[in-house]
Amino acid sequence: MLRNSTSPPHAALAGWEHPIDELRECGAYFHSRGWSVGTSSNYSVVLARDPLELCVTASGMDKGRLQRCDFVRTNQNGQPTANGQPKSSAETLLHVVVAQERPEVGCILHTHSVWATLLSDLFAADGGFAIEGYEMLKGFAGVTTHETSAWIEIFENTQDIPSLAEKVRARLTAAEHSLRFGYLIRKHGLYTWGRDVAEARRHIEIFEFLLECTARRMMLAAALPLAAV
Amino acid sequence: MLRNSTSPPHAALAGWEHPIDELRECGAYFHSRGWSVGTSSNYSVVLARDPLELCVTASGMDKGRLQRCDFVRTNQNGQPTANGQPKSSAETLLHVVVAQERPEVGCILHTHSVWATLLSDLFAADGGFAIEGYEMLKGFAGVTTHETSAWIEIFENTQDIPSLAEKVRARLTAAEHSLRFGYLIRKHGLYTWGRDVAEARRHIEIFEFLLECTARRMMLAAALPLAAV
Amino acid sequence: MLRNSTSPPHAALAGWEHPIDELRECGAYFHSRGWSVGTSSNYSVVLARDPLELCVTASGMDKGRLQRCDFVRTNQNGQPTANGQPKSSAETLLHVVVAQERPEVGCILHTHSVWATLLSDLFAADGGFAIEGYEMLKGFAGVTTHETSAWIEIFENTQDIPSLAEKVRARLTAAEHSLRFGYLIRKHGLYTWGRDVAEARRHIEIFEFLLECTARRMMLAAALPLAAV
Amino acid sequence: MLRNSTSPPHAALAGWEHPIDELRECGAYFHSRGWSVGTSSNYSVVLARDPLELCVTASGMDKGRLQRCDFVRTNQNGQPTANGQPKSSAETLLHVVVAQERPEVGCILHTHSVWATLLSDLFAADGGFAIEGYEMLKGFAGVTTHETSAWIEIFENTQDIPSLAEKVRARLTAAEHSLRFGYLIRKHGLYTWGRDVAEARRHIEIFEFLLECTARRMMLAAALPLAAV
Repeated sequence: MLRNSTSPPHAALAGWEHPIDELRECGAYFHSRGWSVGTSSNYSVVLARDPLELCVTASGMDKGRLQRCDFVRTNQNGQPTANGQPKSSAETLLHVVVAQERPEVGCILHTHSVWATLLSDLFAADGGFAIEGYEMLKGFAGVTTHETSAWIEIFENTQDIPSLAEKVRARLTAAEHSLRFGYLIRKHGLYTWGRDVAEARRHIEIFEFLLECTARRMMLAAALPLAAV
Repeated sequence: MLRNSTSPPHAALAGWEHPIDELRECGAYFHSRGWSVGTSSNYSVVLARDPLELCVTASGMDKGRLQRCDFVRTNQNGQPTANGQPKSSAETLLHVVVAQERPEVGCILHTHSVWATLLSDLFAADGGFAIEGYEMLKGFAGVTTHETSAWIEIFENTQDIPSLAEKVRARLTAAEHSLRFGYLIRKHGLYTWGRDVAEARRHIEIFEFLLECTARRMMLAAALPLAAV
Repeated sequence: MLRNSTSPPHAALAGWEHPIDELRECGAYFHSRGWSVGTSSNYSVVLARDPLELCVTASGMDKGRLQRCDFVRTNQNGQPTANGQPKSSAETLLHVVVAQERPEVGCILHTHSVWATLLSDLFAADGGFAIEGYEMLKGFAGVTTHETSAWIEIFENTQDIPSLAEKVRARLTAAEHSLRFGYLIRKHGLYTWGRDVAEARRHIEIFEFLLECTARRMMLAAALPLAAV
Repeated sequence: MLRNSTSPPHAALAGWEHPIDELRECGAYFHSRGWSVGTSSNYSVVLARDPLELCVTASGMDKGRLQRCDFVRTNQNGQPTANGQPKSSAETLLHVVVAQERPEVGCILHTHSVWATLLSDLFAADGGFAIEGYEMLKGFAGVTTHETSAWIEIFENTQDIPSLAEKVRARLTAAEHSLRFGYLIRKHGLYTWGRDVAEARRHIEIFEFLLECTARRMMLAAALPLAAV
């Protein structure tokens, strides 16, 4: 599935081929599902803390065909740690803020599915929506029963990423009902994270499953009284 | 499709590489269809009877990328037969009960599709729903005509697996209308089984096709009078 | 995609490996699209005329993983031409009748998609439905403009295949509005054909596209006046 | 994914194997998504300007399995530049007109998805429809904010391609609101283009994502007030 796996990363990322390849495989997989088409989406892993450093996808790449050279090493300001690297994603600060406020997080993933795009718009006026009672919720780290409710928060979309990052930070550090597994940006997509690439990737699958359930349930529930089953 | 096929299973499962590989291939296939995402689903084969022993997927694994070492040999209490094995799936007793009450069964498969999740909730108050008249019903072992009706029973979801297993046992051994091909757990997923892996896998495909037909038919039937075709 | 391609066909089919492999590839492709799941579907090629002989898929095989040995050579009565072959599909006579009444046909394909299953039921009382005005209609052999209408005829499902075959024959040989590209069987699936495997396979794709358009158009047209686009 | 990649192109296209292979890969990818089934769709790259020459897919090929010999070198009249080549697509002039009126364009792609087919019909009376406010719009070359609106123009379908090509030319050269990224033909499909194959292919993905959003949003918005979420 992964092509040209021997093309070297930028020197600033030498030795980090393994997490880079894990992100490349995420890209190929998410693209095949239709969750990362065009040049949408961006992915990162935490390389160091104190000070924070991330490996982030470069801006504008086809996520289905990422090369090892399509990644950037950035600092806690979202700036490249060395010259000569490609430009990092415009949304790098949205990765930084999660890494800063969640010390256990090793990987942050952002995707753009059709269901995330639509539900984030339909429920924008409510600021989010709840997903409750599904066994699949147990796929989120730390959830041990389906008898739970996950509030999916929605942020207004903006091209002012520093401002959005601070709004996300406020909800990550809120005393009550702080963000747990991820959030949506209106008509834009999903951010989630995990201890490592495998956990963050699993959270993408869990979210996408639950978002599809939420959307299709609305259509089925509307049809039920009208249909002669 | 199967990676690392040479990683050895635990010593307790030495010699059982073939059925393990069949289950691994089921996992890769079901994952590609979206029926086993996250760490949902679990699969088993019967290794021995008198006393019963099963080979079951370990807990919490990515079903799209199962390794040979991701399986556990368990006894009729769902406990590992030897130390040092990974933890077996929390739902192992749901596999045991089918193997105990259906002596012809060699494989039990559990998946979590969107349609199974939604229909098991929409029809929960009725305790199930009927699927009738489809040619595809002939894909269930022993069915020779489409002029039949399959009742798809729905159990309430719970984290108390021993209790659920006994409810399933009661319906497997009921004098009238006992469970035939499988059942649903509310907002959770599908259990089915077969003589061998191929038959159980076929039953998953048949169920998924019929569940999709049931759901989409509701939406089409609701739209029909409203649409200028 | 094709596994075990060196397993030999039955001696009665020696030398016919090429069309057999084309049908095997159809099976893998249709299965991947969800049009031939379970053991549904069957495929054939015409081997000889005067007297007619067909190569047909054996009964009950997984169409996603057909082996060369999963085919039968049959005569114009749908009976095997030599002993020791697997049992041919129960629907072999539905292949024979098309080959008999359409001398230009070299391949007959039968699939079971969700949309074919549902539309064949929703429009059964009308005996069929029209598909009109789509550019994709030009994918049917001999159609040169989108300004055409294809009537998709629906036959009631039955397990009495000889009787159904004669009903199909009557519509193939009708003086007016005889069957052109294929037909549906209620809650069962699609039959189509072509000069060779490539043309018949193309007709499957054209039908599936047009059936999906027909179904989704109903749902969109019903939603249009209700939705604030 | 690409088979028989060593079969040579026609002599008129010797040396152009790389863009041909890029188009072949587009075909395999679009076919796998269901956007180029049957013999629908056609693709081209600009080989020369002054005078204009294109490399276009031959007529009637299976786009999922294009060979290098399935391409034609044509001039600005859509005629082959050398004898002995396969017949070029009937819609070659629709490629020529874009190449003529957009000097920065290096690749033109035409696909036939279900959503493009249906939306181009439902909104035909309005002459098109707007897609607004989606982050995914930034995937179109030159778009830097989601706060934009893309008008998707719809042309009536016809078999008179020279006439349609002139209508498209008029809208490409219009003083106001000229075509930007692509357009739809009613019940037929999508045309888009880009600087090179990668950009045109990205535009296909962006369009398909946005068309799917537009269609599914209508169905969700219609269901919302009816469904007890």
